[in-house]
Amino acid sequence: MNNFQIKERDNSSNARIGLLTTAHGVIETPVFMPVGTLATVKSLSSEDLTNYVNSDIILSNTYHLYIRPSDTLIHKLGGLHKFMNWSKPILTDSGGFQVFSLAKLTKKSDEGVEFQSHIDGSYHLFTPQKVMEIQENLNSDIMMIFDDCINHNSSEIDLKKAMQRTTNWAKICKKSKRSSNLLFGIIQGGVNISLRKQHLSEITDIGFDGYAIGGLSVGEPKEEMYKIINSIGPEMPYYYPRYLMGVGTPKDIVFAVLNGVDMFDCVLPTRNARNGTLFTSEGKINIKNQEYRDKDEPLDKECQCFTCQNYSKAYLRHLFISKEILSYRLNTIHNLFFYTSLMKKVKQHIKSGTLKTFYNYINESRLFD
Amino acid sequence: MNNFQIKERDNSSNARIGLLTTAHGVIETPVFMPVGTLATVKSLSSEDLTNYVNSDIILSNTYHLYIRPSDTLIHKLGGLHKFMNWSKPILTDSGGFQVFSLAKLTKKSDEGVEFQSHIDGSYHLFTPQKVMEIQENLNSDIMMIFDDCINHNSSEIDLKKAMQRTTNWAKICKKSKRSSNLLFGIIQGGVNISLRKQHLSEITDIGFDGYAIGGLSVGEPKEEMYKIINSIGPEMPYYYPRYLMGVGTPKDIVFAVLNGVDMFDCVLPTRNARNGTLFTSEGKINIKNQEYRDKDEPLDKECQCFTCQNYSKAYLRHLFISKEILSYRLNTIHNLFFYTSLMKKVKQHIKSGTLKTFYNYINESRLFD
Repeated sequence: MNNFQIKERDNSSNARIGLLTTAHGVIETPVFMPVGTLATVKSLSSEDLTNYVNSDIILSNTYHLYIRPSDTLIHKLGGLHKFMNWSKPILTDSGGFQVFSLAKLTKKSDEGVEFQSHIDGSYHLFTPQKVMEIQENLNSDIMMIFDDCINHNSSEIDLKKAMQRTTNWAKICKKSKRSSNLLFGIIQGGVNISLRKQHLSEITDIGFDGYAIGGLSVGEPKEEMYKIINSIGPEMPYYYPRYLMGVGTPKDIVFAVLNGVDMFDCVLPTRNARNGTLFTSEGKINIKNQEYRDKDEPLDKECQCFTCQNYSKAYLRHLFISKEILSYRLNTIHNLFFYTSLMKKVKQHIKSGTLKTFYNYINESRLFD
Repeated sequence: MNNFQIKERDNSSNARIGLLTTAHGVIETPVFMPVGTLATVKSLSSEDLTNYVNSDIILSNTYHLYIRPSDTLIHKLGGLHKFMNWSKPILTDSGGFQVFSLAKLTKKSDEGVEFQSHIDGSYHLFTPQKVMEIQENLNSDIMMIFDDCINHNSSEIDLKKAMQRTTNWAKICKKSKRSSNLLFGIIQGGVNISLRKQHLSEITDIGFDGYAIGGLSVGEPKEEMYKIINSIGPEMPYYYPRYLMGVGTPKDIVFAVLNGVDMFDCVLPTRNARNGTLFTSEGKINIKNQEYRDKDEPLDKECQCFTCQNYSKAYLRHLFISKEILSYRLNTIHNLFFYTSLMKKVKQHIKSGTLKTFYNYINESRLFD
């Protein structure tokens, strides 16, 4: 049985609208997943996500939850959904990217990755089996295979080694799965198109519930990333959900949707919110700027979000300058609502066959570069 | 016209239930006012205060708002209510206590207090006229006179000098008032009963819309504070609202209500919340304690607040330990709801004539010491 159904197609691009069925409900794609690293999307409650952001799915981080408060504790408490009072779907990453980017003194082998916690320096070992066990303890609706993430500047030999490992680990992950939750494969291969295609074929051969492009947006030039999305997106299995990990800006997302991608996650809207960088229909603004000091108007006159309906730029600037806790929540609600609205627009453009025009507008206006 | 009506009395104590009419609505007393220093009760939105805390009035700090973002800016933007999207009453203090406790290099004279901002070191002068102008710019429903706050250990000579100044400033404040908003007098006199009575008489003679006891809970022994509340509370003008500034614990509040006090403000529930100290029907707990690590139960089984209805101790501990922003909001909602509920109970006990028994229970159980 395939959990993914394609409902509509854009005839002039690879974009599509789909329905992905999970244990906690059906998600309409293309979808953006807010990042809830430590069982909370930073500054928001689960009610905020439902009532003010209209999120249908969130992402949470296996590595972080394993370290704090631990997957075994969350399991004992009834799983991640109950723990954070979120009844809709959750996707968890596999920790592959975090042990690569966050953990200290990592030591890789074919077996897995030994690392020291970035919190207390304690020693841990992530193997494909272990990573599956953690994700099952969390009761993640969509689990990701453990992948070998390496620097985007790595040599072809190293890229191939990482691909080989990822393939082996992917097989072990599939074999280790105990629950009926979904498991997605991850395609590596850096910014080398032929390696990417080779790895796509290896991972597809194993067979998963969905497929992800990993290892992008990790410091490589933007045009390299676009090249990979453009070459790989349309070639990923058509009848399965396609997920671009850790991406991106509004422009990146629309570009990837044009190339057939269905799912996205990124810390950009939430991290930007906490730094005072806010998305508006007229581009990004920094709320701390002096020019907003006395502006008795919403961040974005076109925006229907809770923040824009209730608070002025002047108030938001005051909260941000004063480092008031409320600042982070109001900013985050706005930026995530912007992303939810973007995805809504993307779906409308797919339906009306105008997504390419929309992309050109975003690209040429440079509003979100 | 008197803006205060007494609706019910406790025959066995000085406690009463009253209705205080302000430009932004009627408040039932006894009432606790959450502290919204910088135009936000830290971590909460105005909607949280209305929907989750059921607050009817908040306090905001004149000194802080004068420094950031400035009363003139708030005036230009339509006043404090509009600025922070709060349509219910606001009481502002006069800044007397803050220039005493926060500002640097203060220089007092009969004219006022010169001080340096605690934010940027800039020089400022607070006079009674200036403080009234600021509060009118904010459009505070209940303004406070500018009072001379001094150390509780001060000599009788210094206490008398501060009283004299406060009396003079009180007269200037009354004369400077331009709006129809309410203005409350403040009684000083340290922990000296006869000085307090003398000052009460001076301030009452001037005539205000309500009367406050200032200069308590500033480091003096608790029994000294109770002695003053017990001697002065019942002697304050009966037909006017009585406000005990900056107090206090649940026990302090119930004790003061027994002695005829109607209004309270304190940072205790909000500051405690941000430090992880939470009020429950079984006493105070610190949410960071290891014992709550795996507790799949609400903070307080009897509590109907948003936090207790949706989140477990284990989750709240995790958020607090991880310094997640959501921690401060959920904790603050709980502690303020506890205070709102306390005031509701206090009113019920006044109606049933059992407030003294309730006080004895709180006092003997030592739950909130």
